[in-house]
Amino acid sequence: MIAVNDADTKHLFDNRYGTGQSTIDGIIRATDILLAGKSVVVAGYGWCGKGVASRARGMGAKVIVTEVDPIRALEAAMDGFAVMSMKEAAKVGDLFITLTGDMHVIGEEHLKLLKHGAILCNSGHFDIEIDLKALKRMAVKVEKNVRNYVDAYTLPGGKRIFLLGEGRLINLTAAEGHPASVMDMSFATQALASEWAAKHRGQLKPQVYEVPKEVEDWVARLKLASMGIRIDNLTKQQEAYLSSWSIGT
Amino acid sequence: MIAVNDADTKHLFDNRYGTGQSTIDGIIRATDILLAGKSVVVAGYGWCGKGVASRARGMGAKVIVTEVDPIRALEAAMDGFAVMSMKEAAKVGDLFITLTGDMHVIGEEHLKLLKHGAILCNSGHFDIEIDLKALKRMAVKVEKNVRNYVDAYTLPGGKRIFLLGEGRLINLTAAEGHPASVMDMSFATQALASEWAAKHRGQLKPQVYEVPKEVEDWVARLKLASMGIRIDNLTKQQEAYLSSWSIGT
Amino acid sequence: MIAVNDADTKHLFDNRYGTGQSTIDGIIRATDILLAGKSVVVAGYGWCGKGVASRARGMGAKVIVTEVDPIRALEAAMDGFAVMSMKEAAKVGDLFITLTGDMHVIGEEHLKLLKHGAILCNSGHFDIEIDLKALKRMAVKVEKNVRNYVDAYTLPGGKRIFLLGEGRLINLTAAEGHPASVMDMSFATQALASEWAAKHRGQLKPQVYEVPKEVEDWVARLKLASMGIRIDNLTKQQEAYLSSWSIGT
Amino acid sequence: MIAVNDADTKHLFDNRYGTGQSTIDGIIRATDILLAGKSVVVAGYGWCGKGVASRARGMGAKVIVTEVDPIRALEAAMDGFAVMSMKEAAKVGDLFITLTGDMHVIGEEHLKLLKHGAILCNSGHFDIEIDLKALKRMAVKVEKNVRNYVDAYTLPGGKRIFLLGEGRLINLTAAEGHPASVMDMSFATQALASEWAAKHRGQLKPQVYEVPKEVEDWVARLKLASMGIRIDNLTKQQEAYLSSWSIGT
Repeated sequence: MIAVNDADTKHLFDNRYGTGQSTIDGIIRATDILLAGKSVVVAGYGWCGKGVASRARGMGAKVIVTEVDPIRALEAAMDGFAVMSMKEAAKVGDLFITLTGDMHVIGEEHLKLLKHGAILCNSGHFDIEIDLKALKRMAVKVEKNVRNYVDAYTLPGGKRIFLLGEGRLINLTAAEGHPASVMDMSFATQALASEWAAKHRGQLKPQVYEVPKEVEDWVARLKLASMGIRIDNLTKQQEAYLSSWSIGT
Repeated sequence: MIAVNDADTKHLFDNRYGTGQSTIDGIIRATDILLAGKSVVVAGYGWCGKGVASRARGMGAKVIVTEVDPIRALEAAMDGFAVMSMKEAAKVGDLFITLTGDMHVIGEEHLKLLKHGAILCNSGHFDIEIDLKALKRMAVKVEKNVRNYVDAYTLPGGKRIFLLGEGRLINLTAAEGHPASVMDMSFATQALASEWAAKHRGQLKPQVYEVPKEVEDWVARLKLASMGIRIDNLTKQQEAYLSSWSIGT
Repeated sequence: MIAVNDADTKHLFDNRYGTGQSTIDGIIRATDILLAGKSVVVAGYGWCGKGVASRARGMGAKVIVTEVDPIRALEAAMDGFAVMSMKEAAKVGDLFITLTGDMHVIGEEHLKLLKHGAILCNSGHFDIEIDLKALKRMAVKVEKNVRNYVDAYTLPGGKRIFLLGEGRLINLTAAEGHPASVMDMSFATQALASEWAAKHRGQLKPQVYEVPKEVEDWVARLKLASMGIRIDNLTKQQEAYLSSWSIGT
Repeated sequence: MIAVNDADTKHLFDNRYGTGQSTIDGIIRATDILLAGKSVVVAGYGWCGKGVASRARGMGAKVIVTEVDPIRALEAAMDGFAVMSMKEAAKVGDLFITLTGDMHVIGEEHLKLLKHGAILCNSGHFDIEIDLKALKRMAVKVEKNVRNYVDAYTLPGGKRIFLLGEGRLINLTAAEGHPASVMDMSFATQALASEWAAKHRGQLKPQVYEVPKEVEDWVARLKLASMGIRIDNLTKQQEAYLSSWSIGT
């Protein structure tokens, strides 16, 4: 088995730049809100979360990141984002986007704290990142499709909360998913990794393999060429130096 | 007559943040291209151009600005954008967006220089910013609607150029125009300016008036309140100081 | 009299890009703090404030803007900054930079709310933007020059507050002021405006004149040329169109 | 042996945010140039290069990245930077910063192509990233210390090139190195890793160990706390889900 999802040419690109753009795209198509000036809460600062946080900021939003991993939380803080717990974020967010791969990142305790008009969506994983059962249980009124892909939930006291795409991946629900021009890399890596496995038939053991470096580099070089970008190659002297570090002080 | 289009609450906001977001939105809906890594040429660095350049950069594009005004060109350069003539930009751009208010910003001499696969659209003014007559005259083949809102023009030699929305405003053609949450300001200003004119019936001369400062401020204060933002007020002492500058060294 | 300070080639550039960079420079030299992840409060969102807010964000800070003008406050919000009153900001800021041109922007009521370790500086105007008299009156202990250009004030209860450059312009106090490569524009404009006045001796009335557009454009064109940037010129047809708008729909 | 330099709490932070800020700081102190509008060439897009590229852009520079690794080159492109070979960059750069860990990244063939007035510095490794021998050999005139830390080399034909800090790490030469508030993390990790080694005396084999995850997390949590940031903790249910993925569709 080859761990194609862990390939650099996959997660560094399609997860980050693909999810970044297509999530914003799905949200705008579903809601037509102006992102500039909005408080956007991004739950999770993995590759997907990094992509979405960066693009939301790029559209003029004031981005808040929540995390459970302290190192990622620090990265988010030093990238200039506000970092806080979901309980704090729940009170101030205009738009929430979950990208954690875990369940109930927005749970009942957070739903209670939301502002009137808050918008919830998921771009990470199954329809479980937002606790939909709690939301339905709490709601005194549910209006389906107040806009395409938008359901309105009225909570006790009259607060109205909007759920996009029934909590499923918003970029697939309301937009076209990732652009072809980033999926090409993921698919090329998968195809070439399969070819590599076929060529090495009989030589591989029953274990998880990484995508070979030469496959990754080849995909990256083809992509660069398609973008008209030329890069440097190491000279012999530079290669030798990298394995010695014998000069300079 | 009141120059509502010159109101700060109009051009600083709907032209910049509205056009910025909705232009990107229209382009993504029409093409589904990944903006990250693309060379995006923004023609014109007025409020609309500033908005689009900023949002395109925010989506990971490498932005090039063209201008005829030297002061705006310098601003673009110091905002970190590549600034060049359209002749130079024509050779390297992947996507062109015109926002100048003038005609033939992309003319025959530029069309000849485009790369295979270049995408052209307009978000500034009438369907005249791109010289469509020249494009049609030069084309050896035209395919309408290769995607919704996308026409493909094949030029002599085989280069294929894509024109979005027939050269009309791409945010209106392929997306929903500006979000309501920024048009509210423009419309409020227009309504209140009309009210002001009605109240001053008989006192106004036949000339062009600016929107009164108090109308603009009121709209801006209402908008801030709707966003939950509180700002400071000048103290008496601070107001007095501003008209004297009598203390401090 | 010619209002050289209002020239575009002055305030759009030296106020914004010059102050932006040199203020950050002065603060880093004085304090050697890491800006990434810090809450930086920028008081005032005029050209100087815009420059500093943009550069502080560019260094990874989480920027908060305070304003008294509702339109500027909205601009800051839609540029993605947190906007709040100084009373709110005082409680959360790590570093405060005043650029308002007014007095006591950080007054006694705000000083009381500061966090332990907060850093205060001014890059706008005289040593009056921060209420230094209040700070001195409140302090139970003052340590001068704990680092060069840094004085430590201990407030009742033990909170220690750092004042940079005695509240005077931090870019002049702790750094070299604006870089020559932006002051060149301001000085060229001033010199050429004087030349213009001399040439028009006898023809000018006793009033305040704007810098003539041709002087501004000439300075901007020279600057662009020195940066190796070529821009477009309007064709005859384009110039004619701009005064007619007779084609297109 | 423990590979402390590979710790996340080291390279993700001090290499990126520390080098990012201190390199810009060193360059500004040495040269007092305005970065806004300058073409800044960053050689190497590892953690140090990423930090410097991001901060240079944040100061308004137009950033060009050179790389030998195709995956990093693609990342830089999709982060919106211009990516090209050093031969191409040499012709257009105003300022060059090497952060590669290799030798002669700017070699004789590149030195020949530089623009008059180009500035060279290194922030990566020993004084070998720029080929100083070639530079000295080519120079028809050398002026030491035309400003502090700046030497001017006149090349045949009259082009004048500026070398900062004799090609040694510019952040250490001309500024104060990394701010204490990011080195604290690196030093804490090193101290705690040593403590961990001491506590496990006798149980470790002669090999290279990674810094234990619990040490890294503890350092990151302390740092977050010092910044006043609270983050979420996984609930029992969330932890269980992460090892099962048994719900949701």
